[in-house]
Amino acid sequence: MAFDVLQDKILKMRNPTVFGLDPKPEYVPPFILEHHISEIGPTPEAAAAAYYEFNCGLVDALCDIAPAVKPQSAYYEVLGSAGVRCLEKTALYASDKELYTIADVKRGDIGTTAEAYSTAYLGYIELDGVKTAPFGFDAVTVNAYLGTDGLKPFYETCRKFDKAFFALVKTSNPSSRELQDRRFQDGRTLYETVGDLIKGLGGELDSYGYLRVGAVVGATYPEELSALRKRLKEVFFLVPGYGAQGGSAKDAACAFDERGTGAVINSSRAIMCAWKKTGNDGADYMEAARAEAVRMRDELREAVGL
Amino acid sequence: MAFDVLQDKILKMRNPTVFGLDPKPEYVPPFILEHHISEIGPTPEAAAAAYYEFNCGLVDALCDIAPAVKPQSAYYEVLGSAGVRCLEKTALYASDKELYTIADVKRGDIGTTAEAYSTAYLGYIELDGVKTAPFGFDAVTVNAYLGTDGLKPFYETCRKFDKAFFALVKTSNPSSRELQDRRFQDGRTLYETVGDLIKGLGGELDSYGYLRVGAVVGATYPEELSALRKRLKEVFFLVPGYGAQGGSAKDAACAFDERGTGAVINSSRAIMCAWKKTGNDGADYMEAARAEAVRMRDELREAVGL
Repeated sequence: MAFDVLQDKILKMRNPTVFGLDPKPEYVPPFILEHHISEIGPTPEAAAAAYYEFNCGLVDALCDIAPAVKPQSAYYEVLGSAGVRCLEKTALYASDKELYTIADVKRGDIGTTAEAYSTAYLGYIELDGVKTAPFGFDAVTVNAYLGTDGLKPFYETCRKFDKAFFALVKTSNPSSRELQDRRFQDGRTLYETVGDLIKGLGGELDSYGYLRVGAVVGATYPEELSALRKRLKEVFFLVPGYGAQGGSAKDAACAFDERGTGAVINSSRAIMCAWKKTGNDGADYMEAARAEAVRMRDELREAVGL
Repeated sequence: MAFDVLQDKILKMRNPTVFGLDPKPEYVPPFILEHHISEIGPTPEAAAAAYYEFNCGLVDALCDIAPAVKPQSAYYEVLGSAGVRCLEKTALYASDKELYTIADVKRGDIGTTAEAYSTAYLGYIELDGVKTAPFGFDAVTVNAYLGTDGLKPFYETCRKFDKAFFALVKTSNPSSRELQDRRFQDGRTLYETVGDLIKGLGGELDSYGYLRVGAVVGATYPEELSALRKRLKEVFFLVPGYGAQGGSAKDAACAFDERGTGAVINSSRAIMCAWKKTGNDGADYMEAARAEAVRMRDELREAVGL
């Protein structure tokens, strides 16, 4: 249950990496994009077909060394329904290759709306007794601004379908300090308050001692990350901000408990765009992505002591 | 620019209503849902086709008396890409009928991701020089938890395409108090701080004196709504919580300035499900929706003095 499926994979591969699938036209090797545009024309459908081919290639290249994948929904939604269809297919393909799949959607709403969001990404719908899983991800990211009303439906869906979710606690961007670092009159910052709120949702612990609700905490603020690791002992962390955004492996290592468990570190651009540094116009995008993923894995292994 | 297009429509119709299109299988008249299921089978595609027919019927029934429409994305996403295709088509249909369209997506992310979200809902993409508008909404709802990094890209997209966005300030749900009402050490609540943050984005004022960035403020907290109306003079309000959630017309009226401008009030379930109260199994869903919309309009006219 909860995060132990992911943790098992991380320990087996000795690699706490989740790789992002955040495609943009300029991230896709030109030969892939041009092929689909020449077949279908310069349409969202062509871009979506190119993204899918690229995503499948990356999944194939990495699925035996990386435990998890995290598509960022925005890059699919910007292609409209054609992009969302690509997201559906990508989730299915990655699941078939036994990757743990995280939908980075950062949804946040109340009541039946939050129920619909959580069902969309983690559950299934039923029409006339026939069940369909719209996306079938293993976990999802959530924004907690609306409070418990917005989190409970995600929690319930996760319990029902044996899934998990990550709430945004302390994000990796510079202006995360504007609201998140601000201190309330009780002495806690907003992000500490959100952390306490999600921890308070409670529930059973998995075999590694983690709850079904996790937290997004950026590697770009290693002090806050270390403090949160101590404060939220039972909360599994999804850590963005490593690499391109400036977080080092040493920074990211602050997300782990003393056993080397409890977190997964994201890398998107460095892996997806590794082909840009080899001078082969993307012909070797799979090898390039794998080489960067191995480099990151080895760096994290050493920093975390895995 | 900004909200004056919406405000013009509101004054012309003397109706500050935005009607929600938040479909669920049980909200759609059975004859519509059964027709599509019998044609296609019990699939997300059938539900999406039924939602589209229902949405078009509601748009037809209301477009001459209500200025704006707000689909809630969650109810489309739960049908996967078939649902998102229905959302695209619904936005287009409503725009063709000259409704002001608001995408209730509550997205919130940083940098290029926020840029992708804002482009998806408000802008257009370009492939080989060919432009496509994925959804083409007039405005979008946004979550500000990530700070300015998350808002600026929405602001820039809005400026570029002459659109507008609403940031969540004080939401209508009971647990909005857990985080939003909490007071920081400088004496401001979180929701006041978010309000000040979005106001601080600045920019030119439209012909009614409003900025390009608006705020979501619930009718269920009329005192806070009144205080925010005074605090954020240049900020246009999108007000949920009227009707089913407990906010009265008098409560909602607190959202307006002394001229009777500056806000739009949402109603979803009461209008969509009006047919359930007439005993005709949905055969009269258009008339029933219109009757409820007229009732709401007249109530708001009186309360606001429009």
